[in-house]
Amino acid sequence: MRILGVDPGLRRTGFGVVDAQGMRLQYVTSGTIVVPSDLPLAERLKVILDNIREVVETTSPTVSALEKVFVNANPSSTLLLGQARGAAMCALADSRLQVHEYTALQIKKSVVGNGHAAKEQVQRMVQHLLSLDGLPAADSADALACAICHAHVGPMVDRLAQRGQLPGTKSVRLRGGRLTR
Amino acid sequence: MRILGVDPGLRRTGFGVVDAQGMRLQYVTSGTIVVPSDLPLAERLKVILDNIREVVETTSPTVSALEKVFVNANPSSTLLLGQARGAAMCALADSRLQVHEYTALQIKKSVVGNGHAAKEQVQRMVQHLLSLDGLPAADSADALACAICHAHVGPMVDRLAQRGQLPGTKSVRLRGGRLTR
Repeated sequence: MRILGVDPGLRRTGFGVVDAQGMRLQYVTSGTIVVPSDLPLAERLKVILDNIREVVETTSPTVSALEKVFVNANPSSTLLLGQARGAAMCALADSRLQVHEYTALQIKKSVVGNGHAAKEQVQRMVQHLLSLDGLPAADSADALACAICHAHVGPMVDRLAQRGQLPGTKSVRLRGGRLTR
Repeated sequence: MRILGVDPGLRRTGFGVVDAQGMRLQYVTSGTIVVPSDLPLAERLKVILDNIREVVETTSPTVSALEKVFVNANPSSTLLLGQARGAAMCALADSRLQVHEYTALQIKKSVVGNGHAAKEQVQRMVQHLLSLDGLPAADSADALACAICHAHVGPMVDRLAQRGQLPGTKSVRLRGGRLTR
């Protein structure tokens, strides 16, 4: 399983790719898409769309994961973030990748063992779990943490979903018979 | 000039296509993309992406227009709307269409002559201006109104932008030398 984690933002969108075999994790690549802020909105969204697509084409992930977003910021930031998320999810879904979403609590719990861990603890645990030489940058670390969370939690989620035992989610059958959450 | 107006929403996305020659307007087509609400978010966004793309391929517009959104609803609605908008704009930008944005005030002023017109007045004026047999549905009417607004206002905006006289906006030069707002 090769997991692409994405941390979408209209100014900076982080991405991180991790290979997972059972509990064994292997770092593949990570980085940040920096979006020029002086472009019109539609062009900025296209920068995200095109670059996520390029990451997918270059690294061939088998599945993807995003952080579920809180909306406690101000409304216009929420709208901008929503649009950036929409662009990132479009790029993933358009590449026929399943998109899994996890809350910040789930991600921190899965990566650090503490749902209320500080940002820097997450960065250090990502460095440790993936045996990186240095501390990953903030955007990359969040994206990698999201991928690691799916490596830990995803297989169980998939098993429960296949048995229809996932509480609070519906099983949906898509064209082609592929089962998604 | 063939204008595609889009009124994005995660449950219903309206679209309307209008030909404009100077002040002469000609209705081409309109409709509503109804998004199944039981799909996972990424698949719902892909429904918007794919269907807007199909409208673009089928009708070959030369430019597109969207309503600028207010964010007075609750934060999670704002996030959902933002994601739907992101998907719609990605479809347009990915089809190499320029995307123009207008506020509800600009659209109503341009279509009805009154920035605070009621929804039904907009529907009736859209019917009148495009010589439609019946009253257009709400989503289609909003999308068509947006296209009509661009037909009225767009050429002036373009002239001012080319002279660099547009107040409050920057001229940006893109790859290929195409000038966008």
